[in-house]
Amino acid sequence: MFRLDELVARLGGEVCGDAGVLVGRVATLDQAGEGDLSFLANRKYLGRLQDSGASAIIVSPDARDLLHGRSAIVTADPYLYFARVAQVFNPPPDVRAGIHPLAAVAGSLPTSVEVGPGASIEEGVDIGEDVVVGPGCHVGRGVRIGRGTRLAANVTIQHGCVVGEHCLIHSGAVIGADGFGFAREKSGRWVKIPQVGRVVIGNEVEIGANTTIDRGALDDTVIGDGCKLDNQIQIAHNVRIGEHTAIAGCVGIAGSTTIGARCMIGGQAGIIGHLSICDDVVVSAGTLVSKSITRPGVYTANLPVQPHADWVRNFAHLRHLDALVGRVRSLENQTGGPDDRKPG
Amino acid sequence: MFRLDELVARLGGEVCGDAGVLVGRVATLDQAGEGDLSFLANRKYLGRLQDSGASAIIVSPDARDLLHGRSAIVTADPYLYFARVAQVFNPPPDVRAGIHPLAAVAGSLPTSVEVGPGASIEEGVDIGEDVVVGPGCHVGRGVRIGRGTRLAANVTIQHGCVVGEHCLIHSGAVIGADGFGFAREKSGRWVKIPQVGRVVIGNEVEIGANTTIDRGALDDTVIGDGCKLDNQIQIAHNVRIGEHTAIAGCVGIAGSTTIGARCMIGGQAGIIGHLSICDDVVVSAGTLVSKSITRPGVYTANLPVQPHADWVRNFAHLRHLDALVGRVRSLENQTGGPDDRKPG
Amino acid sequence: MFRLDELVARLGGEVCGDAGVLVGRVATLDQAGEGDLSFLANRKYLGRLQDSGASAIIVSPDARDLLHGRSAIVTADPYLYFARVAQVFNPPPDVRAGIHPLAAVAGSLPTSVEVGPGASIEEGVDIGEDVVVGPGCHVGRGVRIGRGTRLAANVTIQHGCVVGEHCLIHSGAVIGADGFGFAREKSGRWVKIPQVGRVVIGNEVEIGANTTIDRGALDDTVIGDGCKLDNQIQIAHNVRIGEHTAIAGCVGIAGSTTIGARCMIGGQAGIIGHLSICDDVVVSAGTLVSKSITRPGVYTANLPVQPHADWVRNFAHLRHLDALVGRVRSLENQTGGPDDRKPG
Repeated sequence: MFRLDELVARLGGEVCGDAGVLVGRVATLDQAGEGDLSFLANRKYLGRLQDSGASAIIVSPDARDLLHGRSAIVTADPYLYFARVAQVFNPPPDVRAGIHPLAAVAGSLPTSVEVGPGASIEEGVDIGEDVVVGPGCHVGRGVRIGRGTRLAANVTIQHGCVVGEHCLIHSGAVIGADGFGFAREKSGRWVKIPQVGRVVIGNEVEIGANTTIDRGALDDTVIGDGCKLDNQIQIAHNVRIGEHTAIAGCVGIAGSTTIGARCMIGGQAGIIGHLSICDDVVVSAGTLVSKSITRPGVYTANLPVQPHADWVRNFAHLRHLDALVGRVRSLENQTGGPDDRKPG
Repeated sequence: MFRLDELVARLGGEVCGDAGVLVGRVATLDQAGEGDLSFLANRKYLGRLQDSGASAIIVSPDARDLLHGRSAIVTADPYLYFARVAQVFNPPPDVRAGIHPLAAVAGSLPTSVEVGPGASIEEGVDIGEDVVVGPGCHVGRGVRIGRGTRLAANVTIQHGCVVGEHCLIHSGAVIGADGFGFAREKSGRWVKIPQVGRVVIGNEVEIGANTTIDRGALDDTVIGDGCKLDNQIQIAHNVRIGEHTAIAGCVGIAGSTTIGARCMIGGQAGIIGHLSICDDVVVSAGTLVSKSITRPGVYTANLPVQPHADWVRNFAHLRHLDALVGRVRSLENQTGGPDDRKPG
Repeated sequence: MFRLDELVARLGGEVCGDAGVLVGRVATLDQAGEGDLSFLANRKYLGRLQDSGASAIIVSPDARDLLHGRSAIVTADPYLYFARVAQVFNPPPDVRAGIHPLAAVAGSLPTSVEVGPGASIEEGVDIGEDVVVGPGCHVGRGVRIGRGTRLAANVTIQHGCVVGEHCLIHSGAVIGADGFGFAREKSGRWVKIPQVGRVVIGNEVEIGANTTIDRGALDDTVIGDGCKLDNQIQIAHNVRIGEHTAIAGCVGIAGSTTIGARCMIGGQAGIIGHLSICDDVVVSAGTLVSKSITRPGVYTANLPVQPHADWVRNFAHLRHLDALVGRVRSLENQTGGPDDRKPG
């Protein structure tokens, strides 16, 4: 348990009310009880402030007058503060240094490294202090992993790839499988192009479960510092992603596309190959990006869901939209055109 | 091999014809031969009944008169009966009780449990009778797994998660990886929110290969009894799914969305976060659900596939649909409006 | 390092310039240096030919006059030649024959086979010469794998499946999990239909990381010779794919669909179940194929991405397209119809 003034000493902000209140867990306003610290990030939930059983609440300065004597930490961005407190309350599990007897380690590792059962590490690796290689992971020859990085169970990192410091890679992720590169014979038969690039991942990157990042064909595939990738994302060969870009689940990014810094890509979005997306672009869920984007902003292309019968009635016309436009043009010609009269 | 009257004694229905016919396999009408039991679930395939080499056929009562002396089992729902017979003919493989010497088991397990080579089970788990933990699986600390549940090879279940009885989880599935939760600094840097909820899975749930179900942020992610999830599905943190809902492959469900009971979600559909989908909703393949659904029924939003040249011609207009509507409104104003005259 | 005339003796083509030039790596025109062989596959990049630091360049006959004394290999298809040279320069790693002491092998294997740590192979398998079973792989009972095939780390092949010769299966792929087959009780409860078919994969097939191919329900799921499947693809039960078809990442193909030979399916495309796609069909990225295709060609259905505000304005009308068409019809009736007058 932490006193509010201890938290403020560590994370900033200002205590309002009793600085000696003890809290040890984070919880939503609705579910918080004794010992819980909650947060109010949106004035929409102001009504829940009164009824919350939380021992203390993180609020923004403009909510200070609404506390009615409740203990609080006042800070400019309560949600960000909540994230930091949650990290204090829930530190990552300790590294259990040592190599499990059922792991196969060919290279030499710092003594602070944890290697779980069933894991295998090939020759020539360069693994930093306090790295965790979870059960069933495979780390190929010549891989470099920076200090403090954790691989959850059953992660695969293929030969020669580089993972930065303090990364977190979730189960089932595959880093450095071959990119999808083939030349085609006239007969239709495909000839494989060996993929000799690497995957190079920066520091503080999180990679979700069953996400795949392919090695480059000739050059590298690059994921910038601080990127956050959700589950089941596919990053093709030679993609380059700028720092602090966040990508939601099930996104696919095709080969050789470059994505800028601080972008946010919504779930199930797709980005075709050889495009360039500038910094600070937001792509909505389910949107297929089929051309480069040169200006920051939000980009969207998805369909309004409808009851099936409405969809049948409305979307059948999509096959004939060109004809419809022609009919409107014809009507305009008959009536003298759209420019002759103002709409009423 | 089973006599038809043995099957009927076990599964219900009524024998028509020779009750002593022996069958031991299920097969389609086209491919069935001696010893095979086939089924007629759709009158469309009635013509195949005559030519089938099946030793017996499962039919509905209205097909009884069309058997022309063939042996049959008559039942109200032949396809459902076929499923039950197929289970009789193809029981799951025996549990090979015992812990493989190349498995690492920290907790204590019932003697009836099978643990395959390369598997690891951490401390504090509670595993029921007749559970199978396949080769290469990882079961984290404190996990509970109900009796009769099977994990195929290379499944990962992270710490604290709960799996009910008689579940079947296919290879590569990841249960309980961290949800995708971050707060953003002004600089664009992301601060991780520790994910301290669990995944709680009911009884008789099937989870497909490489499907991922993330642990909750503060509360749990919940999959109801009898749900069937296909391959490569992504279920984000704090999603709740009602019982007997079936979800086809490649579906993504974003965080905190609630889905009712007995829903059917088509392949590659997506459901955005913080929505509520009521019971008995059917979502068509490829549909992005972007708002809550409060009434049972079928919902759709996908595009009619076209030859590429037609698509270019028709879909270019989508960028200008608002202008087209304006042009029609202008024409209506010129001609007196759509309400003044009846269509001829 | 290889002399140009050595390469030509092995792979065909014709040397232009100094046949004794030594090359040992492939590189792009931009990045090539001493000892690198580059290629010019597209006249668009002709300008880069002059400035490239490559020791030699692969060109087509029509570029022969533009070499200005540079050493080159002249061939009809430079990109295909590049692929073959890259294979010469980057042969697959040697097979390290033998079974790792931390692998569990129940069956008997040729001495030329490599089995990595943490791998498990069940009884009754038939594995060819020079097969590599990577770390953490699981090969179920009765599986057949042809000579020269390689399984990267953490691949799962379930019982009874067949993989041809010289295949390459990347990490996390799951071959032969149960198809998604259930019959429904009136209550909504699902009854599993045991999946007793196999997956049968031809020769020279490549399967990407975390791709899943389900076993057939009664018959087999079949992948033809020379098919190339990218990452995170889902192939449902009883799908049949013709030879030399290539499928990009994140594609989903629903049950019992048949796809012809030499097709190319773009990323994130989906194909619903029980369809038939003929040979030589190209499906664009993100397209949902919802009906059978009987003629070769390119097929597309995806949406033009727009700035979000434009999308809101334009796509809202999709819900009312049927009404818009009715309004145009009404206008046509008022003005005498679209056939009475020619557009001006």
